[in-house]
Amino acid sequence: MTVRYEVIGIEGIGEVRPGDDVAALVLAAAARQSTPIAPGDLAVISQKIVSKAEGRLLKLTDVTPSAVAVAMASGLGRDARLVEVILRESRRVVRMDRGVLVTETHHGWVCANAGVDQSNVEADTVALLPEDPDRSAHALRERFSAAAGGEVCVVIADTFGRPWREGLTNIAIGVAGFAPLKSYLGERDPAGRPLQATVLALADELASAAEPVMGKLDRVPAALVRGLVLPPDDGIGSKSLLRDPARDLFR
Amino acid sequence: MTVRYEVIGIEGIGEVRPGDDVAALVLAAAARQSTPIAPGDLAVISQKIVSKAEGRLLKLTDVTPSAVAVAMASGLGRDARLVEVILRESRRVVRMDRGVLVTETHHGWVCANAGVDQSNVEADTVALLPEDPDRSAHALRERFSAAAGGEVCVVIADTFGRPWREGLTNIAIGVAGFAPLKSYLGERDPAGRPLQATVLALADELASAAEPVMGKLDRVPAALVRGLVLPPDDGIGSKSLLRDPARDLFR
Repeated sequence: MTVRYEVIGIEGIGEVRPGDDVAALVLAAAARQSTPIAPGDLAVISQKIVSKAEGRLLKLTDVTPSAVAVAMASGLGRDARLVEVILRESRRVVRMDRGVLVTETHHGWVCANAGVDQSNVEADTVALLPEDPDRSAHALRERFSAAAGGEVCVVIADTFGRPWREGLTNIAIGVAGFAPLKSYLGERDPAGRPLQATVLALADELASAAEPVMGKLDRVPAALVRGLVLPPDDGIGSKSLLRDPARDLFR
Repeated sequence: MTVRYEVIGIEGIGEVRPGDDVAALVLAAAARQSTPIAPGDLAVISQKIVSKAEGRLLKLTDVTPSAVAVAMASGLGRDARLVEVILRESRRVVRMDRGVLVTETHHGWVCANAGVDQSNVEADTVALLPEDPDRSAHALRERFSAAAGGEVCVVIADTFGRPWREGLTNIAIGVAGFAPLKSYLGERDPAGRPLQATVLALADELASAAEPVMGKLDRVPAALVRGLVLPPDDGIGSKSLLRDPARDLFR
């Protein structure tokens, strides 16, 4: 049987504000466009609307930068208040050079600006990553599954850069309902040799698959991935995607 | 109108050997499963079958490792003949530590083992990356477009690891028929602020989208991405995805 699946953008969700019920907004929008969330679906939700609904917004006018942030901002040529916020969201600075600040967030993600973002929010406001994206994903999964009458999986996605290659890709920062890694460990090729390249970051690949239908202008902050069988949940969530720093050659 | 697209695995391509006509094999297999390649499709083709068809195979028994390769292999705990091949395929060593050899290939890709792979080939044989994956992609694109009676785009894909995150993802090493980067430069969010995160690596995201239907055991080395409008071809191909070393903080 041919393996195939579909990716469907969910439009008409509209502007999301602190306290809004993202699950209800996504369910209603999906139903309105005649693609209601169904059992077996993976819902990919933009980090930005989750952060907004959870009130993870900060007014830069309320931020007093520390002396360290002022000094770093001067070297980077950036707003000291923004640098202050980035440092607060980080547990380690990975690279600081040529205007770029790559840090490790409190969750363990390594990314530019600790995921702090100034687009698609009000002036002088920044959006932080959700405090616990796996928890956010689980809460959405419960609501979606109840509405669909069957199991729905959820990925909270954000666009991260990477070394060596131009362009950002959408990746998973929160996962609920399935194991984000797909493993071929122990399997062999037709010649009987153990497979190399044996663990695939399926959750990241599916976040990327969703991106082409998700409007960067925040008009389509959610998508459905429909028709795939995902690896059974191992209860670890997105933390499986974090490389152990002791095994990482690039920190 | 809802934006949606489909990803379809192409099965039954079978074992590919040097000199085989990959375009004919893929076209025939797609037709056999009643999903013939159609105008507007993006065909994602595994690097492995392209390399095999192009004869990019090497018997390790034919390789005499240099003194440098022997010394490096000893430090890495790896086969000196394999290290010799990896070094020949590389123009720079990026990291060499804990058994891992990350290099920059002659194409400019930074990856483990210069893309040299031992799975899904005969014993004692290794597969190298195609010499010029963009050229390979262009040749396939011409054949597919002629057969479909309209423009077909092509990505040659391989699975690469990345720093900081566990699991490999499928990415584009060859691109034909569209611009691999999607840019929002100059666009503004609803609040009038210039968008951050303005360039997306669409070709990589679509290679990733294809992976879940492409069997790692080489039984499904091709997939169709159907229903998306891709950015117009700028003639640069996959080179747009190479970060300028001068702008890269992680070399």
